[in-house]
Amino acid sequence: MAITVVGSVAYDSIETPAGRRERCLGGAATHFSLAASFFTDVRVIAVVGEDFGPRQEAVFNKRNIDIRGIERAPGKSFFWEGSYLENLNEAKTHQTDLNVFASFEPKIPDAYRDSQFLFLANIDPVLQRRVREAMPDVKLVAGDTMNYWIKDHRAALLEVLKGLDILLINDTEARMLAGNNNIVLAARAVMAMGPRLLVVKHGEYGASLFHRAGADGEASKTFKAPALPLEEVVDPTGAGDSFAGGFFGYLASQETLTPGAFRRAMFYGSVMGSFAVERFGTERIAQLTRKEIDARFTQFRELTHLD
Amino acid sequence: MAITVVGSVAYDSIETPAGRRERCLGGAATHFSLAASFFTDVRVIAVVGEDFGPRQEAVFNKRNIDIRGIERAPGKSFFWEGSYLENLNEAKTHQTDLNVFASFEPKIPDAYRDSQFLFLANIDPVLQRRVREAMPDVKLVAGDTMNYWIKDHRAALLEVLKGLDILLINDTEARMLAGNNNIVLAARAVMAMGPRLLVVKHGEYGASLFHRAGADGEASKTFKAPALPLEEVVDPTGAGDSFAGGFFGYLASQETLTPGAFRRAMFYGSVMGSFAVERFGTERIAQLTRKEIDARFTQFRELTHLD
Repeated sequence: MAITVVGSVAYDSIETPAGRRERCLGGAATHFSLAASFFTDVRVIAVVGEDFGPRQEAVFNKRNIDIRGIERAPGKSFFWEGSYLENLNEAKTHQTDLNVFASFEPKIPDAYRDSQFLFLANIDPVLQRRVREAMPDVKLVAGDTMNYWIKDHRAALLEVLKGLDILLINDTEARMLAGNNNIVLAARAVMAMGPRLLVVKHGEYGASLFHRAGADGEASKTFKAPALPLEEVVDPTGAGDSFAGGFFGYLASQETLTPGAFRRAMFYGSVMGSFAVERFGTERIAQLTRKEIDARFTQFRELTHLD
Repeated sequence: MAITVVGSVAYDSIETPAGRRERCLGGAATHFSLAASFFTDVRVIAVVGEDFGPRQEAVFNKRNIDIRGIERAPGKSFFWEGSYLENLNEAKTHQTDLNVFASFEPKIPDAYRDSQFLFLANIDPVLQRRVREAMPDVKLVAGDTMNYWIKDHRAALLEVLKGLDILLINDTEARMLAGNNNIVLAARAVMAMGPRLLVVKHGEYGASLFHRAGADGEASKTFKAPALPLEEVVDPTGAGDSFAGGFFGYLASQETLTPGAFRRAMFYGSVMGSFAVERFGTERIAQLTRKEIDARFTQFRELTHLD
């Protein structure tokens, strides 16, 4: 089943201990859709500027991603500059230019209307909510957010959470959103805000899937997916969005959403996150094959299973 | 097969967000031997003062732990006072009184000589090495250490590492010992110092078992055990030693040390660590049953396995 994703398509200038790249193709919707495209049809809603050209389009087209919902506006695309020189787990932002994103009004192409899965990538919760309300009949809605919206746009974010089935955030964001340092209690508090499932990403320690008691026949059971022990992390940018793409893309490829499907989705999320960080920007995932994905899935199983 | 463990038997005064306890029975050898006693025979080498009495002895006796190697010396037992008020993952030490431990000369009772497993808990590496050399014929030797020995007693510690099959330390210690922040590269560097297996404990994120390439028929494969998501951590003191006791105790209970045995040992380590933190000091593990251990092992499997 097709996924519609709304979020940023952007240019990133990134510095890490492995080097520096100027103006790579990036943005949450980009990383998400590339990762999800290995599992299902993906349709993107975003806005870009006049600097978005055929080379960037080709990255999406090569993966058969529908970009009819990427609006072209006069001006420049969203731009972010950041570094991970001291800490690979947390970016230091040097510059954020919203550019055409400042006046973004998401429009949903008619061709996207039959999407059964909706992903609200990390953007202004006001926009997330608008897209959610414009697509009331989707089967499953997941979303992401970040510390900025949690701290300074809480009321709008709480409205979005009410309309989500699944929220994907990291440890720090979960603790901040719940105001509780214990991750189990924080997860429970966050799920009381709306989402019946919560994925908490732990960076190099993998991710946890929490179920609201009674949801999905799993009571309040938790599932943990590992991260791959990596000798080198070239660029962490987009790892979380790639995780979300693998996770949600796999779910959208399933006939029925059994508890087992959610567990495998967590593994596919970790698999896609592990590829994302191997090169700068979208370089690794844009070149990936399904065979490589399946081989790494097997590796994740061996990493965690007793027999 | 029996384990001999050398390490501290001590009194701890502990403050955590859950409360405060004065002079609980503690020490690495205590926590280790209680956890290991659920799997195999355990024999302790330590020194205590005149404040160690029948109530403390009873804790060991109840678990059939051989304490003939616990020497009584004039003076007071080792005493530690610490708190975890801001961070449950790291103790803040308020006081350390070595007392009788300052002049500890480990003596190995004849009855311990046929032990096939040896655990060198976290003490002065000079003493660890002496015990290791006095028991040259053991089948498997594991050990622990801490930041203090890594920083200020490196030469003595490196001598100990040469005689270890397995080292168990936490992330910070592994990074410090190797001088490398990447945990995969750090693990490889540490294993080049002697141990062919390395267990790195990640606190609330579980633990990883690294194999030196070629060791145990697993090439350089890694295995990850989760930690249990806990709503409350009452007292983290002894969690690492309890992990080591579960891990090494389970290995000692096995006829042959297959790769599968090491994987299950990692789970039993996590299981014992998860019980340890549920109450202050030894309170939880001293009251534990094998049935509770097996139920939690099943819970760990469900937490991580796809089917």
